[in-house]
Amino acid sequence: MFLTRTEYDRGVNTFSPEGRLFQVEYAIEAIKLGSTAIGLRTKDGVVLAVEKRVTSPLLEPSSVEKIMEIDEHIGCAMSGLIADARTLVEHARVETQNHRFSYGEPMTVESSTQAICDLALRFGEGDEESMSRPFGVSLLIAGHDENGPSLYYTDPSGTFWQCNAKAIGSGSEGADSSLQEQYNKDLTLQEAETIALSILKQVMEEKVTPNNVDIAKVAPKYHLYTPAEVEAVIARL
Amino acid sequence: MFLTRTEYDRGVNTFSPEGRLFQVEYAIEAIKLGSTAIGLRTKDGVVLAVEKRVTSPLLEPSSVEKIMEIDEHIGCAMSGLIADARTLVEHARVETQNHRFSYGEPMTVESSTQAICDLALRFGEGDEESMSRPFGVSLLIAGHDENGPSLYYTDPSGTFWQCNAKAIGSGSEGADSSLQEQYNKDLTLQEAETIALSILKQVMEEKVTPNNVDIAKVAPKYHLYTPAEVEAVIARL
Amino acid sequence: MFLTRTEYDRGVNTFSPEGRLFQVEYAIEAIKLGSTAIGLRTKDGVVLAVEKRVTSPLLEPSSVEKIMEIDEHIGCAMSGLIADARTLVEHARVETQNHRFSYGEPMTVESSTQAICDLALRFGEGDEESMSRPFGVSLLIAGHDENGPSLYYTDPSGTFWQCNAKAIGSGSEGADSSLQEQYNKDLTLQEAETIALSILKQVMEEKVTPNNVDIAKVAPKYHLYTPAEVEAVIARL
Amino acid sequence: MFLTRTEYDRGVNTFSPEGRLFQVEYAIEAIKLGSTAIGLRTKDGVVLAVEKRVTSPLLEPSSVEKIMEIDEHIGCAMSGLIADARTLVEHARVETQNHRFSYGEPMTVESSTQAICDLALRFGEGDEESMSRPFGVSLLIAGHDENGPSLYYTDPSGTFWQCNAKAIGSGSEGADSSLQEQYNKDLTLQEAETIALSILKQVMEEKVTPNNVDIAKVAPKYHLYTPAEVEAVIARL
Amino acid sequence: MFLTRTEYDRGVNTFSPEGRLFQVEYAIEAIKLGSTAIGLRTKDGVVLAVEKRVTSPLLEPSSVEKIMEIDEHIGCAMSGLIADARTLVEHARVETQNHRFSYGEPMTVESSTQAICDLALRFGEGDEESMSRPFGVSLLIAGHDENGPSLYYTDPSGTFWQCNAKAIGSGSEGADSSLQEQYNKDLTLQEAETIALSILKQVMEEKVTPNNVDIAKVAPKYHLYTPAEVEAVIARL
Amino acid sequence: MFLTRTEYDRGVNTFSPEGRLFQVEYAIEAIKLGSTAIGLRTKDGVVLAVEKRVTSPLLEPSSVEKIMEIDEHIGCAMSGLIADARTLVEHARVETQNHRFSYGEPMTVESSTQAICDLALRFGEGDEESMSRPFGVSLLIAGHDENGPSLYYTDPSGTFWQCNAKAIGSGSEGADSSLQEQYNKDLTLQEAETIALSILKQVMEEKVTPNNVDIAKVAPKYHLYTPAEVEAVIARL
Amino acid sequence: MFLTRTEYDRGVNTFSPEGRLFQVEYAIEAIKLGSTAIGLRTKDGVVLAVEKRVTSPLLEPSSVEKIMEIDEHIGCAMSGLIADARTLVEHARVETQNHRFSYGEPMTVESSTQAICDLALRFGEGDEESMSRPFGVSLLIAGHDENGPSLYYTDPSGTFWQCNAKAIGSGSEGADSSLQEQYNKDLTLQEAETIALSILKQVMEEKVTPNNVDIAKVAPKYHLYTPAEVEAVIARL
Repeated sequence: MFLTRTEYDRGVNTFSPEGRLFQVEYAIEAIKLGSTAIGLRTKDGVVLAVEKRVTSPLLEPSSVEKIMEIDEHIGCAMSGLIADARTLVEHARVETQNHRFSYGEPMTVESSTQAICDLALRFGEGDEESMSRPFGVSLLIAGHDENGPSLYYTDPSGTFWQCNAKAIGSGSEGADSSLQEQYNKDLTLQEAETIALSILKQVMEEKVTPNNVDIAKVAPKYHLYTPAEVEAVIARL
Repeated sequence: MFLTRTEYDRGVNTFSPEGRLFQVEYAIEAIKLGSTAIGLRTKDGVVLAVEKRVTSPLLEPSSVEKIMEIDEHIGCAMSGLIADARTLVEHARVETQNHRFSYGEPMTVESSTQAICDLALRFGEGDEESMSRPFGVSLLIAGHDENGPSLYYTDPSGTFWQCNAKAIGSGSEGADSSLQEQYNKDLTLQEAETIALSILKQVMEEKVTPNNVDIAKVAPKYHLYTPAEVEAVIARL
Repeated sequence: MFLTRTEYDRGVNTFSPEGRLFQVEYAIEAIKLGSTAIGLRTKDGVVLAVEKRVTSPLLEPSSVEKIMEIDEHIGCAMSGLIADARTLVEHARVETQNHRFSYGEPMTVESSTQAICDLALRFGEGDEESMSRPFGVSLLIAGHDENGPSLYYTDPSGTFWQCNAKAIGSGSEGADSSLQEQYNKDLTLQEAETIALSILKQVMEEKVTPNNVDIAKVAPKYHLYTPAEVEAVIARL
Repeated sequence: MFLTRTEYDRGVNTFSPEGRLFQVEYAIEAIKLGSTAIGLRTKDGVVLAVEKRVTSPLLEPSSVEKIMEIDEHIGCAMSGLIADARTLVEHARVETQNHRFSYGEPMTVESSTQAICDLALRFGEGDEESMSRPFGVSLLIAGHDENGPSLYYTDPSGTFWQCNAKAIGSGSEGADSSLQEQYNKDLTLQEAETIALSILKQVMEEKVTPNNVDIAKVAPKYHLYTPAEVEAVIARL
Repeated sequence: MFLTRTEYDRGVNTFSPEGRLFQVEYAIEAIKLGSTAIGLRTKDGVVLAVEKRVTSPLLEPSSVEKIMEIDEHIGCAMSGLIADARTLVEHARVETQNHRFSYGEPMTVESSTQAICDLALRFGEGDEESMSRPFGVSLLIAGHDENGPSLYYTDPSGTFWQCNAKAIGSGSEGADSSLQEQYNKDLTLQEAETIALSILKQVMEEKVTPNNVDIAKVAPKYHLYTPAEVEAVIARL
Repeated sequence: MFLTRTEYDRGVNTFSPEGRLFQVEYAIEAIKLGSTAIGLRTKDGVVLAVEKRVTSPLLEPSSVEKIMEIDEHIGCAMSGLIADARTLVEHARVETQNHRFSYGEPMTVESSTQAICDLALRFGEGDEESMSRPFGVSLLIAGHDENGPSLYYTDPSGTFWQCNAKAIGSGSEGADSSLQEQYNKDLTLQEAETIALSILKQVMEEKVTPNNVDIAKVAPKYHLYTPAEVEAVIARL
Repeated sequence: MFLTRTEYDRGVNTFSPEGRLFQVEYAIEAIKLGSTAIGLRTKDGVVLAVEKRVTSPLLEPSSVEKIMEIDEHIGCAMSGLIADARTLVEHARVETQNHRFSYGEPMTVESSTQAICDLALRFGEGDEESMSRPFGVSLLIAGHDENGPSLYYTDPSGTFWQCNAKAIGSGSEGADSSLQEQYNKDLTLQEAETIALSILKQVMEEKVTPNNVDIAKVAPKYHLYTPAEVEAVIARL
């Protein structure tokens, strides 16, 4: 009695007879085309690691940014459409700065995540800041606030979850299985770095080098690893 | 003489020849895909209980929020698209706070419910706060005001009903039958907790633990149960 | 030479070659799916009676509102989409209050009815208060002003008529016939109550109880009957 | 080489290859579904007469208004969608009142007619007062100003003509023929009343009574006949 | 390789592969359905003559206006949709009055024509004064300014040309041929009147009378002929 | 794998799979239907010459304007939709006058050309001055500023080029070939006039007369040739 | 199960089931139709070189601008729709000037590139400055700031990368291979000029002359080479 999906999947905001929003589901597919990113929360802080696809030797690796700072206590890794991610990050930066200005204290990690999801949810509404389609990107948001270290995961529907560990992007399925095997709450930050990179190594098709991965931690401040620091983690594998 | 439904069900706000609004009906389907939530009103207060789908052991159970506070005397459980629910709850929080500020007294539970439904009804109207599609979520709104404890149920069409007990989500059909058998007006709050959880247990596919259910009461203030309090209810089953 | 109706019936505001507006006609169908409501005008006041579909024993009957007060001298019964009716009633309440504030006297029943129809007519116009589709509801508006008691009937096209007696909703056809047989201008208010409820009883599939019907009168003030008062009318059948 | 009409007739404002605007033509069809109305100009004033379709004995005949006052020196009879006519009449009432206020004198009948047609022409333009489709109504506008009595006829395209006599609605074809036979410029007002009602009688399927026709005159003030006055005209047939 | 016209001719403002705008061409067809109008420029002034289709003997011939005054030194004859023409004429009247007010002198005939064409060109632009489709009317604009008498011809594309003589409407083809044979620059105004009417007579299906033609001149002021003056011209044929 | 063009060529601003914008390409076709225009730059000034299609002997040749002044040091010839060209020229006139007013000096020819192309590029954007389709016209802009004489050529995509000589319109292909053979940088203005007119003569189907061509120069001021001056150039052929 | 691409590729902002945005991909195709442009970064500065398609000997080569200055320390080469590129460059010029005015120092090259991409990303959003389709152009942005010389590459999706060397346009595939072979970080500026031009020579179909290529450097100021300077580089090949 119901039609095939092809009748309902082009309207940006149309329910199918089963109650599904296909454009959001397709945007989630865009993330499965993206590079892999991994986050782990430890009691000492959060580690983020991403694969960078440097398609040409003439490309400057450091300009392929897949981990970005939101505030000095929050960073995020991304997978999907990078230009979309920039819009979300820029929005979060303004919100966290406004919070500091208004209240004289840093925004909590959850509130920052909520601010990003509020914007993501409002696609197709035609107002000033929102997009006319879903944002085709997922974020792993790492932060440290009065509740200690935390890791959040957002998707194009504007929903978010708090996680101990999570992988997104084309290699996420295998990486999530490995994380479940290897994760425990007592990991040190250094152990988390090693796990993140060893899992990334499995899902990448080429040799891991400081040129094609990035690592960052929030412990308790955001820090993007230098090539030498990345090299040191690689050396431990 | 009339066409099949497939000709009328994609316009957000188009009547079919029989006078039906299919997009609203499809949004109601979205709720049947959601997790189960149950509410019971007793003479001492209202109990809400929800199933939480924690899809990975690495997910932080407390971040899967399916019961939220609206005001200190009102809470709600939800089933369907969680991001949509957040927009409705956020709207209700602003309305109840404005009411307190303007009139120096808490908003009644019915007025809060009406405020949520006013927003839900206006989808497709293109104004500031409304959505371009129906909200794909149902709420069980529990509250306590000068009229005592009350429980309301809202659906995507913007309609609401007052109930003594009600279940929503994928297991609602079986749960509603069980509620009709077991509910009576003289239940104590503790009996209501036990009934809610025992019915939830029947419709869930896995063992009930403090990680995959949440319980809250409004009696007369909103209170979300701690894992220990949930464990205590489980122990009574 | 003319096409079948299926080519013209989805544009909200498109004439068919025969000069018909199908979306309005389909909205009128929505009312035929609704519960039955009946109104009778007597020389002493107007009586409204409605069937309430209480789909579950756990539903609070008093929360299924199908008769509402507009002003202290005007009330209305409705059939069709209840959320749509609430928007119309809310609009009428604001208009009647504004009138009292501006002119120091109650609005006439006809002016209130006109105000509701003005809003109903403007669907699809894109302005602030109007809907993007026809309102899927009919109202029986009962009132009492300087011209004595009066009863109006409105439909989704924004047209209204003054009646001595009228039924709307799924049972309206049979009920209208019965009304024509039994109505005369010299009925007392009590006789009108009895006729309304006896006709409602014929079109309802279940036994009439204070839980599944509501009765109200405007004589000359609006009054919704208590369960005891409804019971008394039932007893007279 | 040209397509059939079915390719061009749904766009509100699209020319067909032969230069026709079909939505306007379909709106004109709406009028052919309407009740019949007749107007005659005499040297002493103008007479309007309309058929009222009172579909139920419980309907209040006086609430089926098909003749309305615009200003004290202008009235109009209508055929087609009554709710559309009300919008046009309301617009004309505001315009004539504004004219009185600004210039201290009544608006001429032609200017009032022009004001109505200006609004009718602007359908589909998206501004404040206009409709998103053609107005589905024709008016016979009767008035008396410094140029003496006059009768205008407007159609949904926003065009108007001055007439000595004119019929609109479902019986207009036969009625127009009869008018051409019976009209002459020297008719008295009383003769005009008789002709109007005798022609209306021919096209109506039921017996003419004060309940199912309305008569009005502008001579030189607008006056709607009381049932007794209508009865007197009927008696003369 | 190119499609047939039927694929490109419904978008109001869409080029076909050959670079044509079909909606404008179809609007031009609307004019070929219109009544015939003729203009001739002489050294002493300009003559305009139009066929009036008086479809019923009860229609007041003088209310079928196909020649209108724009300013005291400019008039125009029209063919096509009369309601569209009125919008253009009203626009020109405002522009010419504004010019007089601002500069203390009459607007030139060319500037008035340009003002009309500016409005005609902007169809489909969605601003305040413009239409959502092309104006379905052609004008013959006759005027007299510091450059002497002049005659302009406008079409729905917003283009205009200056002419010595021109015919528009359903009989324009034959009338234009006759004009080329009979026109010379030394015609007197009286000769021009005779030629205009004799050509109109050829293309009309009925006898020419003061009821079914209108004549006007601008020499140097606009003057619409009285029935007696028209009769005098007819007598000269 | 790719579709035929017919699937992508009606959206005003839609890329085809090969990266083409068909509506712009079709607008360019509109120019190939237009009359031929030619421009030549010499060291002493620029010459423009156009074919005028005077379709009837009753048309006033001087009212067929295909060469227009923009400012006293800039003029332009056009081919395509004349009404579109007028909008662009009017825009340029305002811009050049504003420049003079703001800076006390004439606008350069390149800046004026850029101003025209800025407007042409923004079609489909919905703002105040822009069109909802590409402008269907090409311009040859001749000017003289502090850099000496210059000639620009614009097309519907909003692109412009500086040329020594250029032909546009239906005869442009043959005319461009002739220009390449005959043009050299040392031509006198008189030689340029002769070349322009002799090439125009080749592509026109009728005899060249002062009635069916226009010539203008900018040397260093804009001057449109009188019929006598045109006759003199013809005599030299 | 999924449809072919032809079902999803015309909506400006619609995801296909695989998560792709086809209109952006088609805009990228527009660049493959463009002329070739090459950029190389050396330790002393950045070199840009472009092919100019001078389609006629009568075209002024210097008016075919494919390298433009953004600020005195930033320039860019482009491939694709030139009119689109102008809009982006104009936007960047305003942003860099505003930065100088607000902060008294030049904008960094990365910030300028980000400003261009912010505008490129927002196509289809309907706000003031954005386009209703993707910008059909790629830029090579060369600059010199406190971080030394840098080269960025942008595409229609609003994404950018930093490169050591990069080719865009129809010959980019072969040119990128050659760049990878010949590029090293120790090139002098003069060697970079020679490499850029020798690669351009390979992909062009005609002989390289100062008329059909442009070269610019930012070292540390933007400088567009004169024909003599280009001739000197050609001579070194």
